[in-house]
Amino acid sequence: MRKIAVQLAGRPYDIHIGPGLIGRLGEFVAPLAPTSIHVVCTDVVAPLYAAAAVAACAPVAPSHLCTIADGEATKNLAAVARVLDGLVAQRADRRSVLVALGGGVLGDIAGFAASVYMRGIRFVQVPTTLLAQVDSSVGGKTGVNHPAGKNLIGSFHQPSVVVSDTAVLATLPLREVRAGLAEVLKHGLLADRAYFERSVADLPRLLALDPDALALAIAGSCEIKAAVVGRDERENGERALLNLGHTFGHAIEALTGFERWLHGEAVGCGLCLAADLSLRVGLIGPAALGAVQDAVARAGLPMRIPGLPVEGAFAAMRTDKKAHAGRIDFVLLERIGQAVRRQVEDAQVEATLRENGYTG
Amino acid sequence: MRKIAVQLAGRPYDIHIGPGLIGRLGEFVAPLAPTSIHVVCTDVVAPLYAAAAVAACAPVAPSHLCTIADGEATKNLAAVARVLDGLVAQRADRRSVLVALGGGVLGDIAGFAASVYMRGIRFVQVPTTLLAQVDSSVGGKTGVNHPAGKNLIGSFHQPSVVVSDTAVLATLPLREVRAGLAEVLKHGLLADRAYFERSVADLPRLLALDPDALALAIAGSCEIKAAVVGRDERENGERALLNLGHTFGHAIEALTGFERWLHGEAVGCGLCLAADLSLRVGLIGPAALGAVQDAVARAGLPMRIPGLPVEGAFAAMRTDKKAHAGRIDFVLLERIGQAVRRQVEDAQVEATLRENGYTG
Repeated sequence: MRKIAVQLAGRPYDIHIGPGLIGRLGEFVAPLAPTSIHVVCTDVVAPLYAAAAVAACAPVAPSHLCTIADGEATKNLAAVARVLDGLVAQRADRRSVLVALGGGVLGDIAGFAASVYMRGIRFVQVPTTLLAQVDSSVGGKTGVNHPAGKNLIGSFHQPSVVVSDTAVLATLPLREVRAGLAEVLKHGLLADRAYFERSVADLPRLLALDPDALALAIAGSCEIKAAVVGRDERENGERALLNLGHTFGHAIEALTGFERWLHGEAVGCGLCLAADLSLRVGLIGPAALGAVQDAVARAGLPMRIPGLPVEGAFAAMRTDKKAHAGRIDFVLLERIGQAVRRQVEDAQVEATLRENGYTG
Repeated sequence: MRKIAVQLAGRPYDIHIGPGLIGRLGEFVAPLAPTSIHVVCTDVVAPLYAAAAVAACAPVAPSHLCTIADGEATKNLAAVARVLDGLVAQRADRRSVLVALGGGVLGDIAGFAASVYMRGIRFVQVPTTLLAQVDSSVGGKTGVNHPAGKNLIGSFHQPSVVVSDTAVLATLPLREVRAGLAEVLKHGLLADRAYFERSVADLPRLLALDPDALALAIAGSCEIKAAVVGRDERENGERALLNLGHTFGHAIEALTGFERWLHGEAVGCGLCLAADLSLRVGLIGPAALGAVQDAVARAGLPMRIPGLPVEGAFAAMRTDKKAHAGRIDFVLLERIGQAVRRQVEDAQVEATLRENGYTG
């Protein structure tokens, strides 16, 4: 088992990584001395792990299960209201603990519910996808979508502890494993060349779900993200670098109705677009662009998603919440292992989009 | 004009109190350098002050108006969603500022919307009721009701500045002025005997809307509340004393469907119930109980609300979010000017309820 300490002002917490940890959930929740425990998960995850999670928590405090429907389509205020209704029905109080058992979407919904129930109760993240284990369970961002854009409604609410059980990845579709690897590559690209190169070399083992390779990649990603978040919890500066590939990626998701592509797939393509734009403005050379494209391709992620509209992409990027008064902040690569924020001329962004198959 | 500085860790803010301040709103908002300003108010307040507020803000940044329906019945997640829809439609970004122009309910809804829009944007409180000016605009509590209880959903989100225009009280129904005085009395009772006695002596001038008496009462209440909140922002200890009269008061509101009585009226009655219980457990003598009852009566607030069910009151108080694992924390009076937290035997609570006309 690996343990990463996330240092945040006043509220440090630990991330535990290893196989079989859901069965040991009680020992991670017990130090919180909860009056009751409320395991929230989707109807897809429930049959797989809910019984084990509730059973592991039951010796610590009265433990309840709250199930909501699966899928990105439920990442809205109505889903949050359902979780809140469950907490009320189960008589959760201010000292109760919510356990978010699921992928990034479930974690965002349940974490947001925890942040607003009685103005904030504690919660434990138990991510069950590679994407959530390497990314969404670190940083304290919670929230849901608005029809006008992703994650427009949310809060900052740090988990009390994160428990990443690597054994659950065995039941994850390969496509979702690939999607998780997009964030692994992103973390290396923006902050740590050695981690990037090791992860690329490890791709065959990661795609084969080798436990040691997975634990190493998860721990490394969490360490990079935790370090960045610890230095900039409220996203005023450095934390924005974590959005590498995400301005393009969010636009892809918005233009395809948040259904055609997984978040990680859109980010994988977004990394290639960001690298292309970095080359275009003179920050990196063709070798670095090639390395990014090669890594994305070897992870089995889309390097290009042709046929999307140029104008639609601009409109989506201007609605993104990183935009200020209509100007788009891009995160670009200065080199492999170092990202930088930059505002770019529309003409260069358009050239990158057209180069990569955008039309109209 | 009076100015109160609220000292909170990392986020101090000022409360400005005086007549005609809505017309000067721009000078208080300008230091925030907003990209846009979004005035949120109800359809009752809109015809009175919205045009003046928007006009005062317009020189600072593009200013918009977002109107929602009036009344406690709208204090739910749907009202928050409407404000969020308005912010999206008006293209508010992370550097935009929301102006909450209205009473406590509007402030709670709009403040909560500000706290979750893009994970939190800044907001300015412009309270238009006495209750909001003396109480709800200080402390950073935002939130809405759940069918199962008041304020079960919310957040802590401090305003960037509070602007209390005392001239607006001239359009306030007298019943709402009386309701505001309940919190004035409460603040004196829990923390400051001299302020309590001066406020009681000033009741005729306050009920006649004497501007100097109002400004003095508002400033005094804000100072008391700000001092308490500054010492305990997250309500782990001393801040709970601000709930004097509120455990009983919330139960009255819940038992009467949140419609029959104004919040301040329920709190006025709750102060008398809390004083009765304080006498019953031996904390205060009959003279102190008499002083509380006399003050509540002279403010024109209900000393007793007979005919409510004893069992229903217990059930409502156990659902209150201050309850832990079913035990009710009461805030009682140790003397006039000093409150204390205490858990009390059910039999004594029941005796207080029956003494004051509860039945069943």
